[in-house]
Amino acid sequence: MLISALSTATGVSVATLKYYLREGLLMPGRTTSATRATYAEEHVARVRLIRALADIGGMSLASIKQVVTAIENPPPARIDLVAAAHDAIRAPGLDHAVDPEAVDLVERLGWRVDPTSAPLRSLSAALEAARDAGVAISPARLTTYARACQRIADADVRHAAAAATPTETVITVVAGTVLVDPVLAALRRLAQQHVSADLLT
Amino acid sequence: MLISALSTATGVSVATLKYYLREGLLMPGRTTSATRATYAEEHVARVRLIRALADIGGMSLASIKQVVTAIENPPPARIDLVAAAHDAIRAPGLDHAVDPEAVDLVERLGWRVDPTSAPLRSLSAALEAARDAGVAISPARLTTYARACQRIADADVRHAAAAATPTETVITVVAGTVLVDPVLAALRRLAQQHVSADLLT
Repeated sequence: MLISALSTATGVSVATLKYYLREGLLMPGRTTSATRATYAEEHVARVRLIRALADIGGMSLASIKQVVTAIENPPPARIDLVAAAHDAIRAPGLDHAVDPEAVDLVERLGWRVDPTSAPLRSLSAALEAARDAGVAISPARLTTYARACQRIADADVRHAAAAATPTETVITVVAGTVLVDPVLAALRRLAQQHVSADLLT
Repeated sequence: MLISALSTATGVSVATLKYYLREGLLMPGRTTSATRATYAEEHVARVRLIRALADIGGMSLASIKQVVTAIENPPPARIDLVAAAHDAIRAPGLDHAVDPEAVDLVERLGWRVDPTSAPLRSLSAALEAARDAGVAISPARLTTYARACQRIADADVRHAAAAATPTETVITVVAGTVLVDPVLAALRRLAQQHVSADLLT
């Protein structure tokens, strides 16, 4: 398809598509003449992923560029794919010091995680913010949350492990993490309503 | 304390505090003369809550005003407190139609939730966004997520139920929901790393 058809298929303007091409977010089409190139389904999928990460995940184009780099250069070992995907997702609190409470939790749970990893810094920043706002989370409650998140992560990783190629695994982890966060937030609120019908009567 | 001391205690400028007072986000101090008022610990707590909802929760001042209204006029029945808190938290996708998949899920789980409630619309919007991005969530995976969220919500509501007053319950639900979301997001990523060490080797 020509770029005009790619625009129609994705609902993204030709000017924006050209911007994605210039910035390396979208891979080049197949050149058919000096001024023409054609695009395929993989381009439609890439544009939809970019829009979803931007619109739903609230990610900047610079962060999406990191994701694209990870997709196009996946690490050779499968075990490194999740870490590569996490590094590509720019999380808040990245420059935050790791909190002893976060380290204690991870050790208590026996989780094998990179002690310098971005999510450990994000967790530290989020725990400190909750404390500062006067809604500190007790160690027991935090453990309950962590155990529930382990069940969620188990479903996440089993799903990602079923992907056919390293590139698809990175896409699944990135999109699954960023786009499923709002699903989980909504499910948590619905579950609060259901549970409160029992506990708050 | 005078407004200058409230500013020092909270790290928020006097100009911003006066704006919060004018907008009704911060309750008035005790008037001691025509031009002076004094503030107490409850004012410090309120300012910290406003800053946390804005900075961590990314909430607009208009949304925070709704939270303050709910805090100052909590519904008389405890069972309505969670719904009031959810209505006060402006979630994305509020004008989205309710998706049959979301209704099916809630019925399958036997959750008692308001069929017109905001989180059901947010869930519908999030499921559609994931589908559009090419990362649709299977019913089995969604059920796993929902069961895990029910454990999280159980801890949430037990914690909120321990609050001494209706006002504190609303604060606990709002702050606990908005400020704990980033904690859960970070825990999910850490758990993904741990689980992938087992599954992706």
